[in-house]
Amino acid sequence: MNILLVERHLDTEKQIKLPGSLIFSDEDVDDAAERVLHELTGIRKMVLKQFKCFADPMRANNEKDINWMGEEYKHHIDRIITVAYLSLCKIDHKINSTKYSTVDWFPIDQVPSLPFDHNKIISESLIEIRKWIESDFSIIFELLPKRFTIRQLYQLYTALSEKYIDIKNFHKKISSFNYIVPLDEIEKNVSHRAARYYKFDAKVFKKNNTKLIK
Amino acid sequence: MNILLVERHLDTEKQIKLPGSLIFSDEDVDDAAERVLHELTGIRKMVLKQFKCFADPMRANNEKDINWMGEEYKHHIDRIITVAYLSLCKIDHKINSTKYSTVDWFPIDQVPSLPFDHNKIISESLIEIRKWIESDFSIIFELLPKRFTIRQLYQLYTALSEKYIDIKNFHKKISSFNYIVPLDEIEKNVSHRAARYYKFDAKVFKKNNTKLIK
Repeated sequence: MNILLVERHLDTEKQIKLPGSLIFSDEDVDDAAERVLHELTGIRKMVLKQFKCFADPMRANNEKDINWMGEEYKHHIDRIITVAYLSLCKIDHKINSTKYSTVDWFPIDQVPSLPFDHNKIISESLIEIRKWIESDFSIIFELLPKRFTIRQLYQLYTALSEKYIDIKNFHKKISSFNYIVPLDEIEKNVSHRAARYYKFDAKVFKKNNTKLIK
Repeated sequence: MNILLVERHLDTEKQIKLPGSLIFSDEDVDDAAERVLHELTGIRKMVLKQFKCFADPMRANNEKDINWMGEEYKHHIDRIITVAYLSLCKIDHKINSTKYSTVDWFPIDQVPSLPFDHNKIISESLIEIRKWIESDFSIIFELLPKRFTIRQLYQLYTALSEKYIDIKNFHKKISSFNYIVPLDEIEKNVSHRAARYYKFDAKVFKKNNTKLIK
């Protein structure tokens, strides 16, 4: 699992951060989120879900962050409140920033120390994604290729989970789910033992997981 | 199901609204939500869940709302962005406002037209509560008395649901849930036919509803 980060420049120093910007005075936050995502990455029409407002009064009190805001936004900013949005997508989205030279995917477990409270925002976004998947497990299959190996599912699952999961137990559990269907295909051109491909059967999943309240 | 509303005064006119106020310049939104709830209702130590930021640029453009803000907050306010919090509790909480003379519970299906976008906030909060209960049905039992009748459960459930639910089908479905346990007690002093009391067995529920990801 990867996260999209951008590079900010302050004097000669580079630092990566979450993509984000100010909203206009006549703009709704939902519209601002779409606009900023498009400006920074070239991505349009992605379903963005507002997940939390970050408003700790001390979140932008670091000297570097204050200097960067002054240069970037040409305004004196007393306090900055961030409304964070979250989106999940397959990683093959083309990135085409009109604003930053460097916008890239970073493995979620290798994110360094970021400015503001951006590390906190990322860790809270993981909690949010976990809740989504708890309430609808089928979301996980939107992030996988159409045919996937159990190892791919395991890697994504463990990236999202808080705990270590034993791969043998995982295999056992997964094989009891009738909506994860083995295919007659195996991996080709791999150095390890070729694994079987599986597909997700949305119809079977839906039948087993009807909601009590609709 | 009821919602807590307060009465605002503008000249001689009274109008009810959602409880809310401005945050201080050095205050986090979570702390402001707790403070405002306490000032307006006397309630402390309630778990408040931030659920959405409302930022439509036109949400406070009504003349009455502009006049009321001017009187209430003694500031000229160009634009007001609301971070909405949500809490569920049993209805027997004592209300003791230091700020408003009238703070009271209103049946959710009898809420009149409210100022700002408060009706929209309420309808989105219902969608949010529905999601909570979809992902954890046991939440519904936190709102019921320890022993409850199926009619009480049905009434709460239908207040939360979007659709009409047939009470016979509801009875049938509920009786298939082994965590809803019939008691040896029936209602007393009621004009209609006395109904049986039930209790919620959290242990049985938990056993049947272990999450896949933790």
